[in-house]
Amino acid sequence: MAYVGILGHGTVGSGVVEVLMKNADSIQKRAGERIVVKRVLDLREFPELSYSGLFTKRFEDILEDPEIKVVAEMMGGLKPAYDFVSRAMEAGKHVVTSNKELVSTYGPELTQTAQRMGVRFMFEASVGGGIPIIRPLSQCLSANRVSEIQGILNGTTNYILTRMGNEGLDYHTVLADAQKLGYAEKDPTNDVEGFDSTRKIAILASIAFQKFIDYRQIDTEGITKIQMEDIEGAKAFGMNIKLIGSARMDESGEITARVSPCLVPHSYPLSGIFDVFNGVLVKGDAVGDVMFYGRGAGKLPTASAVVADIIDIVKKSDFKAPILPVETQDIVPDTEAASFFVRSAKPVEEVTAALGECDTAEFEGWTAYITQPMTEKALLQKGEGLALSMPIRVITEE
Amino acid sequence: MAYVGILGHGTVGSGVVEVLMKNADSIQKRAGERIVVKRVLDLREFPELSYSGLFTKRFEDILEDPEIKVVAEMMGGLKPAYDFVSRAMEAGKHVVTSNKELVSTYGPELTQTAQRMGVRFMFEASVGGGIPIIRPLSQCLSANRVSEIQGILNGTTNYILTRMGNEGLDYHTVLADAQKLGYAEKDPTNDVEGFDSTRKIAILASIAFQKFIDYRQIDTEGITKIQMEDIEGAKAFGMNIKLIGSARMDESGEITARVSPCLVPHSYPLSGIFDVFNGVLVKGDAVGDVMFYGRGAGKLPTASAVVADIIDIVKKSDFKAPILPVETQDIVPDTEAASFFVRSAKPVEEVTAALGECDTAEFEGWTAYITQPMTEKALLQKGEGLALSMPIRVITEE
Repeated sequence: MAYVGILGHGTVGSGVVEVLMKNADSIQKRAGERIVVKRVLDLREFPELSYSGLFTKRFEDILEDPEIKVVAEMMGGLKPAYDFVSRAMEAGKHVVTSNKELVSTYGPELTQTAQRMGVRFMFEASVGGGIPIIRPLSQCLSANRVSEIQGILNGTTNYILTRMGNEGLDYHTVLADAQKLGYAEKDPTNDVEGFDSTRKIAILASIAFQKFIDYRQIDTEGITKIQMEDIEGAKAFGMNIKLIGSARMDESGEITARVSPCLVPHSYPLSGIFDVFNGVLVKGDAVGDVMFYGRGAGKLPTASAVVADIIDIVKKSDFKAPILPVETQDIVPDTEAASFFVRSAKPVEEVTAALGECDTAEFEGWTAYITQPMTEKALLQKGEGLALSMPIRVITEE
Repeated sequence: MAYVGILGHGTVGSGVVEVLMKNADSIQKRAGERIVVKRVLDLREFPELSYSGLFTKRFEDILEDPEIKVVAEMMGGLKPAYDFVSRAMEAGKHVVTSNKELVSTYGPELTQTAQRMGVRFMFEASVGGGIPIIRPLSQCLSANRVSEIQGILNGTTNYILTRMGNEGLDYHTVLADAQKLGYAEKDPTNDVEGFDSTRKIAILASIAFQKFIDYRQIDTEGITKIQMEDIEGAKAFGMNIKLIGSARMDESGEITARVSPCLVPHSYPLSGIFDVFNGVLVKGDAVGDVMFYGRGAGKLPTASAVVADIIDIVKKSDFKAPILPVETQDIVPDTEAASFFVRSAKPVEEVTAALGECDTAEFEGWTAYITQPMTEKALLQKGEGLALSMPIRVITEE
């Protein structure tokens, strides 16, 4: 019998309890032991639930229960999650979390605490919802030097961009609809400005490159400035616009990372990821391109990732190496040249005289351009006076 | 220092040595210990190699070396691989293999030997080349009841179907070209008749459903009978033809499995997998659809999966539960109704009078049909006398 304490009975937390109860038999088979929810911490009460007797409002009821060996934190945010998680590990309990704020902010400290106490700190659910990505990155791809990770890491923005592309609706119309449908929050800032993706790419890059990188150093641009013309223009070149989080480590060990909208060619693996789905493309020196795809959010998908971590702990596997590195590394500014997509109402000759040779697609009253590779800074200098639209990076296949 | 013995220095075996040497430092970091190739078994000689001194023609040099704790088998085939692998485990050595014949034929026996001897038997590279799929299935998705797996599991056939679709070339022309390019073997039977996919779906289904299923029970149909008209007809309905291996477990625990060409709608995740790439779609009750994508074959991709298994063993993770079940289960005939694609030169009225309501696409001299769901047997009965083309299953999204 392995007893688990649940912190937070919101969407994901209640999903974890549901999955643990519904699939108890098959989970027991995988884990080698029965996994039982012993206490659930929440300030609210749920008298109608069959397991309402398990609820408590005191964290200490979990912390001080010697039978509880695993604590699963699904409260979100830093306070009091950081405090609870630290104290749980200090008390010798393993911790599983779905909390990307926690992992991206306090990853190294929490990893050190786990190491010191001989317990595990796991967070498969913090990126990509139910998609197995943290563990494949740290285990299955361990034979590779990973050179780059690119991901569509946020379901809300991908849903908005998908509908803008398919239905020709503008950003604000689709956002309002997404909010109505529950795909976007009332205050959508965190998603649409790219901040959610930034934390996730920081976590993935830290695992892939084995240097902890600080999400606050990552250049981040969301989708709020994407115009219908950008989407139309991209289509004319056979591309989709996606919000991509990417991180790269060069031969010398320098790391760059960014989150920004990108034009993606139809033939590119990430291009086929629509609606609320997420996808993560990993480039390894041995394995080549590998992609993971699935629902990046939602109650049961995310819960299934939390439960997989719990099972892993109960199976007592993988004790030796922590998932996150403790050592941190500053990222460097990305000065690599890229092709950019821009629009301008100026005559084509004038634009190409300034920007150099471009692929062009003409529309009524304006033209879309894809430049030759250059830095964004060079583009902005060359483009002065052309009243260019916001440049959007183009992903090209090597 | 962890010493490894390599069995077979062919494409994959030499790739394993290359990856272990080239990425030695980063692998050491992941494994917690230096991993060193101590002996390589091959009947050939490679005097030009920097590590030519490691070669031996005697298996006993590896078997009887007490320093070698891990044996990696990349010889392929059953003889002498089965004998060598069994003896290695009997001698207390862990075994990693890329050999799908071995796993699909002797999986339960070898798993029992491993259990009895307290060693591990791992085979990530046996399915999907470098794509992490075995471990995600057995670990990350462990919280799920998997109801279905569908995969494009063979790169050769996917390459052939991709080129037939893109270039309008017939099967024999593309096959000849694929053989010239090294994407298909001189005797392509194993790939094009679907046998390779059958072994792979058997392995995946055994892990997902935790019942070992015998690949010899799986209905298998390859791509040799696919005509250009089938591909044109599929396109008219917005679909691609892919060779799909699939397995399903119903609520009562009965398992069905098959390998056959299928029409796949463009919006379906597996539809975007082209050329030599593989993809595996897993349907879990909690996680929903998850897909894994990457190169399903090739020296370094496959080698990277072998090396990941070796690292896992050196890290001493996951000892508790074996990957494969020991218990076997017969599969049952698939009697579930499906829509089918057929062609006929008979008048549309005559065909639909016999088959019932259909989606149709008319061509010069013939018509393509997609039927309502029915069993293949019912279709063949209804279609008697209509000179129907070979029926091809249609995958529909639920």
